[in-house]
Amino acid sequence: MGTQGAVKGVTHRDLESLGAQILLSNTYHLYLRPGDDLIARHGGLHRFIGWGKPILTDSGGYQVFSLAARRTIDEQGAHFQSHLDGSAHSLTPEKAADIQAQLGSDIAMVLDECLAHPAALDLARHSMERTLRWGRRGRDRFLALREGVVPGVTITNPGQAQFGIVQGSVFPALREESACRTVEIGFEAYAIGGLSVGEPADVMYDMVSRTTSCLPGERARYLMGTGTPSDLVESVARGVDLFDCVLPTRNARNGQLFTSEGRINIRNARYAEDDRPLDPACRCYTCATCSRAYLRHLHMANEINSSTLNTLHNLNFYLDTLERIRDAIAFRRFESFRVAFHQSLSRQSHDP
Amino acid sequence: MGTQGAVKGVTHRDLESLGAQILLSNTYHLYLRPGDDLIARHGGLHRFIGWGKPILTDSGGYQVFSLAARRTIDEQGAHFQSHLDGSAHSLTPEKAADIQAQLGSDIAMVLDECLAHPAALDLARHSMERTLRWGRRGRDRFLALREGVVPGVTITNPGQAQFGIVQGSVFPALREESACRTVEIGFEAYAIGGLSVGEPADVMYDMVSRTTSCLPGERARYLMGTGTPSDLVESVARGVDLFDCVLPTRNARNGQLFTSEGRINIRNARYAEDDRPLDPACRCYTCATCSRAYLRHLHMANEINSSTLNTLHNLNFYLDTLERIRDAIAFRRFESFRVAFHQSLSRQSHDP
Repeated sequence: MGTQGAVKGVTHRDLESLGAQILLSNTYHLYLRPGDDLIARHGGLHRFIGWGKPILTDSGGYQVFSLAARRTIDEQGAHFQSHLDGSAHSLTPEKAADIQAQLGSDIAMVLDECLAHPAALDLARHSMERTLRWGRRGRDRFLALREGVVPGVTITNPGQAQFGIVQGSVFPALREESACRTVEIGFEAYAIGGLSVGEPADVMYDMVSRTTSCLPGERARYLMGTGTPSDLVESVARGVDLFDCVLPTRNARNGQLFTSEGRINIRNARYAEDDRPLDPACRCYTCATCSRAYLRHLHMANEINSSTLNTLHNLNFYLDTLERIRDAIAFRRFESFRVAFHQSLSRQSHDP
Repeated sequence: MGTQGAVKGVTHRDLESLGAQILLSNTYHLYLRPGDDLIARHGGLHRFIGWGKPILTDSGGYQVFSLAARRTIDEQGAHFQSHLDGSAHSLTPEKAADIQAQLGSDIAMVLDECLAHPAALDLARHSMERTLRWGRRGRDRFLALREGVVPGVTITNPGQAQFGIVQGSVFPALREESACRTVEIGFEAYAIGGLSVGEPADVMYDMVSRTTSCLPGERARYLMGTGTPSDLVESVARGVDLFDCVLPTRNARNGQLFTSEGRINIRNARYAEDDRPLDPACRCYTCATCSRAYLRHLHMANEINSSTLNTLHNLNFYLDTLERIRDAIAFRRFESFRVAFHQSLSRQSHDP
């Protein structure tokens, strides 16, 4: 999760040594500051931030809905004021495609409407239909950009792919219809949006299953904004290939750490004298060199290094979990891995 | 400058790869949080923070004078309230030695009185005399600790050295007397305190010369709290071996960067589109991978990585300057290096 072209607290060098394969950057943030025009003049986001591996950009919609001031949504798109300086902007499906073309990410996301949970069926249908219309417009613009017939937009990555987004709230029929009609529009691959917004886990898992069963097997499936380590395992079991999530990095900065023995809140006084590593089973730099007592000290003293060391560990934990999932699949033992994973989880204790 | 057992913004791993040979930690901060007792129970500061190379601790006096609330100084020592929780504490020459014995740094500093600049001659003499009395008491305690006759204090580093501190404000006669009488007390090596407190550079250089000429040539000489790259060169020319300074790290966090072409304020709008590295002559990670435009973006967006990347560069610049000084001395061309250094400096432009 590299909001502004950087993962908070860790350098690209650290990310690469952790084995990170793809970086997510937020279109909303980069559009407002430093601006996609500036980044395009520098040859695109890869070159601007010095990251050679793949980059995925979101459409900007989610941040407009969650961060911007005085936002209104109509059929045309989202209209809002910048949270930085109050300036007025509009984000349409076409504009979202244009900005991402200038950023030159490897994967661009189409603009969708983000619906709050819970939503009534008629509202969810209305929103899903709009997302489909926006999907059509976004795809048309993406194809026009690819053909070079959009003046004023600099294409910095001719190989960019665009993913469509399935909506439909928690209604199985809507999810299935949204998936089928999004596939009809035709994108390089497909994402599942509008989940992890407060619904129970079993509902989310059910929606994931309903959606993936309608998506083509040969295309990547991306579950947006999810989730806990357990969510990753359960979503992979339902056919998901790609995730993004703020949990490992945001929790790290708040002192919430994932370990093979359960979740640790490093602020807890019980760690003041604890000279064990965070996670004895972990081989990250933080666990190799720091005690819980030292990490607690750095966190209580508000040292920048607390964020860095905690983030290194949580990212390693997530990337390691995904690697274990991939290995289990490769060796055809994913189901036994999944059972063992949940058994281990049920034995864990978690700090409040 | 590792205030709380960590250099702000960079990991120990980064410091080691930059070639840092010694870390300074602040006794005042560590005494208040997490406490020298806790650190002693963990086997000392090296083990607690996971840093195997040398550590120097200050006496705690400077932070008491600059940070603590309701501080009073008398012959016994400094009495103050914690800036964290208002709790009452006293720091005496004996207590400063005890705390540092528990921290187990490789170099401990004796408690001295820090005088504000400017100071009248009689006040400066009075303070210098007190620093000498405190020096005697601090040394006696250090020797008693070494002999193991102080109950209740855990010695975590039997090989600890203790440096005396020369004071005397800007009065040559006081500096010389302070140096001679501090040497009479007898320490493993000697530091020059009370400079870089607002006096003109030429006065500081003169005081350094006056002091080093009275210190034994076979013992290290440590100039405390200094300074700019130029100060380093001029102080080495006057016989100084060791420095500590907050400038490279604090300036880095504020966006003030040292380069071979002059000082850069990365907030400056002129860097918004500048795709050159900070310093084309620099081989640090930041200069190898980031443009000025990207560094400006990260700084304006208040990203943690801005502090990390800027600090890596400034530390590299300082450590590289010191390495060039050492090489020049080794190859018996320090004087020509010094002339070239200042000529280069005079051609540089500096951002406001």
